[in-house]
Amino acid sequence: MYVLCRRHTFQVENSAPKMTENAVFSQNKVLTIDTMNPNVKNVEYAVRGPIVQRAVQIEKELREGVKKPFTEVIKANIGDAHAMGQQPITFFRQVLALCSYPELLKDNMFPEDAKSRARRILQACGGSSLGAYSASQGIDCVRQDVARYIERRDGGVPCDPDNVYLTSGASDGIVTMLKLLVCGEGASKTGVMISIPQYPLYSAALAELGAVQVNYYLNEEKCWSMDLSELERSLAEARKHCNPKVLCIINPGNPTGQVQSRQCIEDVIRFAAKEHLFLMADEVYQDNVYAEGCQFHSFKKVLFELGPQYSNTVELVSFHSTSKCYMGECGFRGGYMEVINMDPEVKAQLIKLVSVRLCPAVPGQALMDLVVNSPQPGEPSYTTFMKERTTTLSLLAEKAKLTEEILNTVPGITCNPVQGAMYSFPNISLPQKAIKEAKALGQAPDMFYCMKMLEETGICLVPGSGFGQKDGTYHFRMTILPPTDKLKLLLAKVKEFHQKFTRQYS
Amino acid sequence: MYVLCRRHTFQVENSAPKMTENAVFSQNKVLTIDTMNPNVKNVEYAVRGPIVQRAVQIEKELREGVKKPFTEVIKANIGDAHAMGQQPITFFRQVLALCSYPELLKDNMFPEDAKSRARRILQACGGSSLGAYSASQGIDCVRQDVARYIERRDGGVPCDPDNVYLTSGASDGIVTMLKLLVCGEGASKTGVMISIPQYPLYSAALAELGAVQVNYYLNEEKCWSMDLSELERSLAEARKHCNPKVLCIINPGNPTGQVQSRQCIEDVIRFAAKEHLFLMADEVYQDNVYAEGCQFHSFKKVLFELGPQYSNTVELVSFHSTSKCYMGECGFRGGYMEVINMDPEVKAQLIKLVSVRLCPAVPGQALMDLVVNSPQPGEPSYTTFMKERTTTLSLLAEKAKLTEEILNTVPGITCNPVQGAMYSFPNISLPQKAIKEAKALGQAPDMFYCMKMLEETGICLVPGSGFGQKDGTYHFRMTILPPTDKLKLLLAKVKEFHQKFTRQYS
Repeated sequence: MYVLCRRHTFQVENSAPKMTENAVFSQNKVLTIDTMNPNVKNVEYAVRGPIVQRAVQIEKELREGVKKPFTEVIKANIGDAHAMGQQPITFFRQVLALCSYPELLKDNMFPEDAKSRARRILQACGGSSLGAYSASQGIDCVRQDVARYIERRDGGVPCDPDNVYLTSGASDGIVTMLKLLVCGEGASKTGVMISIPQYPLYSAALAELGAVQVNYYLNEEKCWSMDLSELERSLAEARKHCNPKVLCIINPGNPTGQVQSRQCIEDVIRFAAKEHLFLMADEVYQDNVYAEGCQFHSFKKVLFELGPQYSNTVELVSFHSTSKCYMGECGFRGGYMEVINMDPEVKAQLIKLVSVRLCPAVPGQALMDLVVNSPQPGEPSYTTFMKERTTTLSLLAEKAKLTEEILNTVPGITCNPVQGAMYSFPNISLPQKAIKEAKALGQAPDMFYCMKMLEETGICLVPGSGFGQKDGTYHFRMTILPPTDKLKLLLAKVKEFHQKFTRQYS
Repeated sequence: MYVLCRRHTFQVENSAPKMTENAVFSQNKVLTIDTMNPNVKNVEYAVRGPIVQRAVQIEKELREGVKKPFTEVIKANIGDAHAMGQQPITFFRQVLALCSYPELLKDNMFPEDAKSRARRILQACGGSSLGAYSASQGIDCVRQDVARYIERRDGGVPCDPDNVYLTSGASDGIVTMLKLLVCGEGASKTGVMISIPQYPLYSAALAELGAVQVNYYLNEEKCWSMDLSELERSLAEARKHCNPKVLCIINPGNPTGQVQSRQCIEDVIRFAAKEHLFLMADEVYQDNVYAEGCQFHSFKKVLFELGPQYSNTVELVSFHSTSKCYMGECGFRGGYMEVINMDPEVKAQLIKLVSVRLCPAVPGQALMDLVVNSPQPGEPSYTTFMKERTTTLSLLAEKAKLTEEILNTVPGITCNPVQGAMYSFPNISLPQKAIKEAKALGQAPDMFYCMKMLEETGICLVPGSGFGQKDGTYHFRMTILPPTDKLKLLLAKVKEFHQKFTRQYS
């Protein structure tokens, strides 16, 4: 009944016989690749890029019975804990069920602390329903709970709930802040300093906003640490062609897994103060610290410990989320940001900006509340909660160690310790012949490597080129999330593949 | 311990004794009102603007015991059904509870159809958890259910799930589409045609993107209908200074409550085809049609009924949401958009763009699924579901009629029939003296009127100036959502206030 191509076929036949169908098809359209927003075209996001698209295709082929040298695709490309089998925290889900269907409050199957948390959240919702819009900045009592959590975490450094904004995951907050900060044209265009390797949300958001991405390189030889001299080099370079205003840090690091020392954070804050830079601290992995001797230091706490000269002046925003740590609740898109020393007029603008999108999803706000207001000693859910939390974090620590150890047994692979976060980012030596073949195909050499690994083993990784890396070095990012047995199998397969690949191209 | 103003006070005393504290405070900052993104500064969003901020303040004052001529603030400013006491659909919330805490699947308290829906949704989630990321375009089976819903709604016009994108409410989809469409500078800058009065998300998104807002006026005399001649006028005018590429329609209308006739939709589609415009149809109120003789016609269905000359060429995107209709589940931020005749290369760009933000919140996706795949005859929850749905929609129809009738009894207020959606948008006559006083205060006259009404009665409305209106006319938007008794009281208060206001300024 609905012939979708009639007119367009007609035109191919009559007016432009040599053009491809697609070209004519596009020519008539309002929105084409040539007329669309060029900033969007410049966006790249490797974590869900071509490798992952091919992985989805292969999964479909497997279901359709296509023969492969493997029986399943293992997606180690993204920090998606539940998809890898991590179980949700029982208490969180009980409260969310109670909030979703408050009839359950009459039931005896739920512990009292879960019920009282649910009642408290519902009371703060319009019409006592998760279905009402919240204030655009987030539910009041949730922001209060976040503030108290931050104060506990930072040994009493005060936190004003007015400085807390609930967000849809950390990504939403990061993009919102960049939106406020980015402006200008030509040499006065805002430059934003990001670590290389970086999490590609940053480069994608900067491309979309038309900002200048200013790269500073982490020091792979020193366990991906941040060197002050490199920050200085990068900034001086950038000042030649743009107006660098923002310095972004991810700690613990993604994709690089390092945990910053207190000294390093102090240095960064002093640098920002001296160079008049706005600090953005992505601290979503704050509970994911595994290596002995490493500890999470929040930028906020260190800032305040440096004294009023810094704590009254340096502008800082810190991001957190429900998606990582021991929760891994990515699907709920919960998160918050805390702004420090933000100009009051700009805060009013920020509130206006977030109000256009009405509010972050309320179930995600509720979940964020539970994370910052988890069961306390003496409450009925405390023991189970602590057991679940500890088990998940210990397993992650074990898998971080295991990943580093096994990868370092492979000749041609060098892996820094996975001190924190959820990823290893090993350096891989690729034979010249492979590099040449990749270049002939127009592919980054580590993309070529990862694509081949996917086709031959079913393992889905993200090439280092998707995060940025020093010229001439190659890496991949692999999550440490699969269950221990599967992770061992996966690492064995990676090892075998790497050896075969090296032989094949030597 | 932490003195927040020391350095800045120091500077006030020493270096710039005549500047205000705030100015010095700002001068030292990286991010100030002067250095921030000017596009964000241009954003306005009246639905949560100054009136609403004052309403929140007044609520606080009431709680603190400040005496007022009223005891509560009635927020009739926003289409927030649950906050106004509308009850959620039992079936939806049962399934959401089951998905949140799957242990409940073992329980006998839930009907079998709720359990089977929950199992189906969980099976489609990574690790069978709402906590896993979904595909960026949305969960496959939800998009399939959306496609089947659209086909049923549109009498069999086919819908390809690949054209369906799940979103965080409709706002997210609208902003995403505008992001793709807007580009260019100067006279080649993209122009986007929007109705006046409009829903201020559109003007806000256009300001943020730096696009040209092209106004076409709805005809208040003909029940806010769309006139072809006005579209032509507006387009011709716009072509003198920008590149108009997009035509946005809200049907049923927000804030104006009209329901477009089939003929009018045909005219608009023919106009778009002739003038080479991309159509954006905001159809979030598709179930909210109350007036006799009125019916919802989707742009998609009419497009296909116009024959292949149109259905193969006109580019259309339609938006829907879980927030309105009989559901009113605003807090879950569920929604979808369907794109028709979109260039395949642009679709790839769209998928890339949405992947940067990972995915819409999964509970909202689950809820969207339930809306498009609600209980069917013969299923255990069917009777209750239909009863709840019908009750809500009949009550809304009754309140739409009631609002129109009572407002039209007030001399100086003229209200078009509320044919659909959730708002009345009456025309108010304001005395010259009031207009003069407002202008002296630098306020829009209807802002002055609404602010006064809030202070004197506790009723929170949005002034027409926040949506746009013909010069010299004044309006307010009021939701029809309060419970019938409260709505009657509210309308009586509005009547009384208007009469008093008119007397006072005559």
